[in-house]
Amino acid sequence: MKHLLSAADLDAHTATLVLDTASEMATLAGREVKKLPTLRGRTVVNLFYEDSTRTRISFEAAAKRLSADVINFSAKGSSVSKGESLKDTALTLQAMGADAVVIRHPASGAPHRLATWVEGSVLNAGDGTHEHPTQALLDAYTMRSRLGRLAGLSVAIVGDVLHSRVARSNVHLLATLGAKVTLVGPPTLIPPDLRTEVSYDLDAVLPDADVVMMLRVQRERMAASYFPSAREYARRYGLDGPRMRRLPEHAIVMHPGPMNRGMEIAPEVADSARSTIVEQVANGVSVRMAVLYLLLGGKS
Amino acid sequence: MKHLLSAADLDAHTATLVLDTASEMATLAGREVKKLPTLRGRTVVNLFYEDSTRTRISFEAAAKRLSADVINFSAKGSSVSKGESLKDTALTLQAMGADAVVIRHPASGAPHRLATWVEGSVLNAGDGTHEHPTQALLDAYTMRSRLGRLAGLSVAIVGDVLHSRVARSNVHLLATLGAKVTLVGPPTLIPPDLRTEVSYDLDAVLPDADVVMMLRVQRERMAASYFPSAREYARRYGLDGPRMRRLPEHAIVMHPGPMNRGMEIAPEVADSARSTIVEQVANGVSVRMAVLYLLLGGKS
Amino acid sequence: MKHLLSAADLDAHTATLVLDTASEMATLAGREVKKLPTLRGRTVVNLFYEDSTRTRISFEAAAKRLSADVINFSAKGSSVSKGESLKDTALTLQAMGADAVVIRHPASGAPHRLATWVEGSVLNAGDGTHEHPTQALLDAYTMRSRLGRLAGLSVAIVGDVLHSRVARSNVHLLATLGAKVTLVGPPTLIPPDLRTEVSYDLDAVLPDADVVMMLRVQRERMAASYFPSAREYARRYGLDGPRMRRLPEHAIVMHPGPMNRGMEIAPEVADSARSTIVEQVANGVSVRMAVLYLLLGGKS
Repeated sequence: MKHLLSAADLDAHTATLVLDTASEMATLAGREVKKLPTLRGRTVVNLFYEDSTRTRISFEAAAKRLSADVINFSAKGSSVSKGESLKDTALTLQAMGADAVVIRHPASGAPHRLATWVEGSVLNAGDGTHEHPTQALLDAYTMRSRLGRLAGLSVAIVGDVLHSRVARSNVHLLATLGAKVTLVGPPTLIPPDLRTEVSYDLDAVLPDADVVMMLRVQRERMAASYFPSAREYARRYGLDGPRMRRLPEHAIVMHPGPMNRGMEIAPEVADSARSTIVEQVANGVSVRMAVLYLLLGGKS
Repeated sequence: MKHLLSAADLDAHTATLVLDTASEMATLAGREVKKLPTLRGRTVVNLFYEDSTRTRISFEAAAKRLSADVINFSAKGSSVSKGESLKDTALTLQAMGADAVVIRHPASGAPHRLATWVEGSVLNAGDGTHEHPTQALLDAYTMRSRLGRLAGLSVAIVGDVLHSRVARSNVHLLATLGAKVTLVGPPTLIPPDLRTEVSYDLDAVLPDADVVMMLRVQRERMAASYFPSAREYARRYGLDGPRMRRLPEHAIVMHPGPMNRGMEIAPEVADSARSTIVEQVANGVSVRMAVLYLLLGGKS
Repeated sequence: MKHLLSAADLDAHTATLVLDTASEMATLAGREVKKLPTLRGRTVVNLFYEDSTRTRISFEAAAKRLSADVINFSAKGSSVSKGESLKDTALTLQAMGADAVVIRHPASGAPHRLATWVEGSVLNAGDGTHEHPTQALLDAYTMRSRLGRLAGLSVAIVGDVLHSRVARSNVHLLATLGAKVTLVGPPTLIPPDLRTEVSYDLDAVLPDADVVMMLRVQRERMAASYFPSAREYARRYGLDGPRMRRLPEHAIVMHPGPMNRGMEIAPEVADSARSTIVEQVANGVSVRMAVLYLLLGGKS
């Protein structure tokens, strides 16, 4: 594995290797081994064309725990705003000695183009409406750690699937790992191209779900379209207490964060014992350590 | 000590322990021991909801000298602007492995709430008009180092006390450590709830002061209110050369920075030998090292 | 050498020492010695009053490879915006223990003033239209490494020389090192005070040039003045494929970046084997390591 561009690229063996490595990272952290020397002298650049403090910090923490040097490059107010092309920025970062570039970009496919220009590793931290593969890996890690397996699980992904790179990456990875995914949302927000089950009725799906993954509502998009009101959306596709109680005893509730409490998820649900939202964040650091380790660790 | 939320929480023993530890840190730095391994592998997050480069850098330098990893989280342009609650942000940072969170927030009490949600240590770096405890500690350290003691000192705090978290923290800490504080300013800018001496006449207070602490004028507030003009304010409550010469020979002049030269303090005063303004900055790093050391050092 | 303020200050011996040291740094990096312990415990502050991600990251990477701690201070949204003077900011940074301050400032001469106030080293990372000495050093390093020498080289610097600190630093350093510089551009954009050859005709200069250095067009300035249109400028002073072919076989094409492809330089030229643009970036890190090493290395 040279780059991590898309969850769709991962075969079952590689994906499982990432999850197993993440598990070792978490074990070491639990034993208070907080810093590993593996990537000492390596430079990881966070190249962010969109604000995402949460994802940027997670990668930064992961890289620092592996003793890498981290350089943050926010494309706002940089030469990018002077019109420099992505290619020239990429060549510049490589010339400065970046061993890995973590990229967040509003255009789908930008990480793939980046990977054709640089010699170092490229990690996709979210590109347009396309993919967000480390999110899918941390989600899979969380399911496996809570429920003991991935094969055969029933996973409902609920909300604005059409615009969600999180949903797209999860659909690919979960299929590879043998879980059964059902997309749930209003017809206008379910993309036609994802080959998996679809339902427009959340209540019908819940009794058989092992996992419910609530997507973040993009308020800007909500306002512009689709629904008479946010309240109407929450009524049909939000997860509140009564709905949560339709789930099987063992089922878990996931959310990539940040949450709109009261919109797609009720506070009662977010704070319940079923909720894995905080675990997902912690697992995110372990998974990103694992990916950086596997991409960069063997080189030196 | 788990958190540092408020100078009012510190008893004399604990406050003195911080000052003594800071003194050891300064001694080590003076001997060119610039880096201590104490917090290696620990992560300190600077969570700033207000711009304050000065305070952020001071904490960052302190943490790095103790070999901690530092992650800066400016709440602007982050998920906070997407409406994430302070609680969810806190849980996210904790899940990412933050051992300490240094928080600056416009709402009084925000650090206290944060401390109820996270397992790591919380350090208040300024909350609304409430407190700024490390500033009071570095001020006390500076007084003790210049004047040899704190008990019995006469300290005049001058200016817009009403809106000043620096003043509030100093009043609490100095009372605990046995100094006598007099608040000086226009009646509208002296809060009624602080139990200490009050004067509206700066010239009357100066001849008996060991320490004069000038507060920063918030020009925005000045414009809105209280005084016919900035010049009128400076005439009544600014510290210029003639006024400085009314002080006893040994007395010192303090300011938390950044200064409005020519407004609350004349350049002649700011640059005089009595001024401790630059020392306060240097002492700030030692004091913050001491606090981080005492809060985190014993855990591993 | 205490500071690096201006290329005009460097004598041939010192400049050559920097280039030779940079060459050693590059050799070590080539042998996968990616991290040197030289500046461990030292603090380098990047004090940037203008956006320049490229230069900031280059200094940050250089300092981190020498194991220094790096603190980034963007003057936007800081106490500077509350009206703090450069002097007070400088004294603050020094009090916090900055061993070196790398400063980018819109006012010509700001780094010189800074150097009179602080005890640490000051590195000019670009001041107004005055100088950008590390850029000139990395340019000289690149020429020497591509062409084997500096003495006797013919270097054409092309474009808006009047507003270019890059051009100014190069003119000084190249004269010191024995190269022959010709400034090329429209009469209104050639400053009268630089004692070197001038030409208004790019085509006439090319056949005898060993090096052509294209300056970045500042679109804002272009819009305001000088030329009927950007297209007209590109036609007269841009470097396109046919013009490039007028150069001698061995000649190289340089650009400080970021480029306006299609404006001062055609994509065909930027991506040709003559172009050193990406090498310049890589050399920038080596040169800045060398400067930090020479300024700070001997102190501890």
